[in-house]
Amino acid sequence: MRALVTGGAGFIGSHLVDRLVARGDEVVVVDDLSSGVIGFIQDHIDSGNIIFHQVDITDIESLKPTMTGVDMVFHLAANPDIRLGTRVTDTDLRQGTIATYNLLEAMRLSDVKKIAFASSSVVYGEDAPMPTPEDHGPCMPISLYGASKQAGEGLISSWVGTFGFQAWVFRFANIIGERGTHGVIFDFIHKLKADPTRLEVLGNGRQEKSYMEVGECADAILHVISNTNDSLNLCNLGSNDTCSVTRIAEIVIAATGNEGAVIEYTGGDRGWAGDIPKARLSIDRMKSLGFDINYDSDDAVRHTAEVLIKEIME
Amino acid sequence: MRALVTGGAGFIGSHLVDRLVARGDEVVVVDDLSSGVIGFIQDHIDSGNIIFHQVDITDIESLKPTMTGVDMVFHLAANPDIRLGTRVTDTDLRQGTIATYNLLEAMRLSDVKKIAFASSSVVYGEDAPMPTPEDHGPCMPISLYGASKQAGEGLISSWVGTFGFQAWVFRFANIIGERGTHGVIFDFIHKLKADPTRLEVLGNGRQEKSYMEVGECADAILHVISNTNDSLNLCNLGSNDTCSVTRIAEIVIAATGNEGAVIEYTGGDRGWAGDIPKARLSIDRMKSLGFDINYDSDDAVRHTAEVLIKEIME
Repeated sequence: MRALVTGGAGFIGSHLVDRLVARGDEVVVVDDLSSGVIGFIQDHIDSGNIIFHQVDITDIESLKPTMTGVDMVFHLAANPDIRLGTRVTDTDLRQGTIATYNLLEAMRLSDVKKIAFASSSVVYGEDAPMPTPEDHGPCMPISLYGASKQAGEGLISSWVGTFGFQAWVFRFANIIGERGTHGVIFDFIHKLKADPTRLEVLGNGRQEKSYMEVGECADAILHVISNTNDSLNLCNLGSNDTCSVTRIAEIVIAATGNEGAVIEYTGGDRGWAGDIPKARLSIDRMKSLGFDINYDSDDAVRHTAEVLIKEIME
Repeated sequence: MRALVTGGAGFIGSHLVDRLVARGDEVVVVDDLSSGVIGFIQDHIDSGNIIFHQVDITDIESLKPTMTGVDMVFHLAANPDIRLGTRVTDTDLRQGTIATYNLLEAMRLSDVKKIAFASSSVVYGEDAPMPTPEDHGPCMPISLYGASKQAGEGLISSWVGTFGFQAWVFRFANIIGERGTHGVIFDFIHKLKADPTRLEVLGNGRQEKSYMEVGECADAILHVISNTNDSLNLCNLGSNDTCSVTRIAEIVIAATGNEGAVIEYTGGDRGWAGDIPKARLSIDRMKSLGFDINYDSDDAVRHTAEVLIKEIME
């Protein structure tokens, strides 16, 4: 199979590319390297295992030629900075919604009809019961990033309904691990690197979310696709429990050896306007399809702290 | 209150404008007249009751100056032709999703924070239980129009969550009545005007949807807004039952006096790819807020046939 991965040089994308290459797929990576890192896929480029196109998918004309011979698209490209929407309102529209439209339209014009999409738990919004099942409604995202993920889901389901596409939509918990380029653990390590005596935490630290290790996320994507075959397949990917931001701060402080660092809270129940204080997905569907995780939230956080400290501090 | 109505010269918009003027609001109409009709609001313009801006809301710069002094926006502008998405894929993206973004951003920049939005039953997609309640999930629209309505809902809920907006999202059944500019009854009358001996019906005629009279829809919007005050208020608007397409054809044939016309079906379970064959909304929430309808589906269809025959045939 020839698989095209948008955001394939990014955090989750590069782990997915590793697995696609390992199972023998032809892999085409499309990434504008705005947050992706060429080093994450350089070995595959050097060994001739993948084709790399440095393409900005907000430009549909650049995207069209990459579709040649492609059997399936894994759409992971997106603005990774959820907080940015509080200051700049068109980033998620352009890099999320419009980019997803461009991708679907480029696929349609090339008769490529299978797509897997990295959506997010944030589409559920703030008032969802926890653990949140896939059939929760209404979905009312509170961040502009969440709105763009919901818009992407809707575009994909309309291409399924109108143009006969087949799709897999994955709603991710917080995905963390090796090659992380953003997120709370990444931020904490950078803060402690700059000042080992204190650690500023956005909010009151009681925000509590579910974390999944990135390698297991990539494995789960491929497992679910192999074990489902509806025209539109929707599946949460996450872990069984949650970890609080204060707990993450403590883990990162311990892992960096900065035991004396003082945690300072900015206060309030959330990190920023549009942040969801508590989130935990139901992963019953994922499990019923035969996939289970090894890392629960605490373990995933600890593992991530260890690998990112190596990447960032050394 | 100064109310701005996008699509205010359109089918539903102009009925809403009538009511806003009648209750004494200052009314600003924004419409590009692509499907709106200036005649629908000419009396209000002539009597100085409304301010009219011929503005295309896909252009944010033209939209910004219309926000001056506005207290609340009623966002009804959209591409009215659902079928178009099967041939032209960017219309709903531009005139729906991007236009809604433009509107929200223009509002934010002018500190206008209240919005009512005309969404649609088509956001629920094809597999929803009937009657469909507001908390149905997952919402997986099958038309590009539906995708743009869902994207609009998500944008609005993210402006609520991130920027402190207050919003009312209405999911409309099929709205029909005086000044109709599109839809199945409108199409049937035009077909019979062109050839009174036969009536082509898209699909097998067994499609069955819920119809609401446009004046009651406009009344319901204002009633629900007056009786709800959450930051985000979601409400289906519709009637208690459904009417089949064959029944509509029979009603229109009788009302036009073309009793000899032969109904010819194109076949298949739906009118076009992306059409939802059967739809009926739960209107329990609307009723619990104290609003009830006079016209059920059959009556609304008959009434609409009568008024549109006058508008079209005479």
